[in-house]
Amino acid sequence: MRLVNIDHVAIAVNDLDAALAQYERQYRVHAEYREVNEEQGVEEAMLPVGASNVQLLQPLGPDTPVGRFLARHGEGLHHVAFAVPSIDEALRHLADEEVELIDAQPRMGGGGHRIAFVHPRALAGTLIELVELR
Amino acid sequence: MRLVNIDHVAIAVNDLDAALAQYERQYRVHAEYREVNEEQGVEEAMLPVGASNVQLLQPLGPDTPVGRFLARHGEGLHHVAFAVPSIDEALRHLADEEVELIDAQPRMGGGGHRIAFVHPRALAGTLIELVELR
Repeated sequence: MRLVNIDHVAIAVNDLDAALAQYERQYRVHAEYREVNEEQGVEEAMLPVGASNVQLLQPLGPDTPVGRFLARHGEGLHHVAFAVPSIDEALRHLADEEVELIDAQPRMGGGGHRIAFVHPRALAGTLIELVELR
Repeated sequence: MRLVNIDHVAIAVNDLDAALAQYERQYRVHAEYREVNEEQGVEEAMLPVGASNVQLLQPLGPDTPVGRFLARHGEGLHHVAFAVPSIDEALRHLADEEVELIDAQPRMGGGGHRIAFVHPRALAGTLIELVELR
């Protein structure tokens, strides 16, 4: 298990266009790409900040994980994603340590990366995503 | 205004020792330093992850900002910190854009950096810290 970097910090937003405009105006950062991820029920935008990114997530509807998060918490920090060299090795290590996983097997995430989520119960209430480098 | 990097992602925890042990066991990351910040009412640890850090925050008591956060939300993501070349220039830009600041003037943060917080109302419910590089 080796964490290479913070790949991104994800923020749940009600209105992606508005949040993008605010990031541009306040911090002069811009979306590198923007895409709909039907499987995760979000439209997402990735805003590079140095070696990492801010990821903005707008739910495709109320009955999605991010839609339910917004209903409970309102807008705000949603998860943190760590880049790993090998997601298979990372998931094997976490399973060996009996860490509670959301995804026991990797799946396809935004930008075509292999990803997996770790349950927030496993560590300080934090939803953690692992992203395999390419 | 220029963001250099994500300096850290901060996570509020009930028990700093337990959270550090879990980060070591699950992710093989270790605290570079640990210190009490009386002004902010926390004991904090900084865990390098690539060019960024995970910062763990344990409140010094219930009547502190992080103590109240834990009482409302439980453990979890607390804020994100962006590194900037000049905090004076960044605060001037944000004031010009009429962004709601918590700290209109910089103050001393962990590790001896000049920092300032921006109000979560300003942008997608996210508490943002600016950290000046040295």
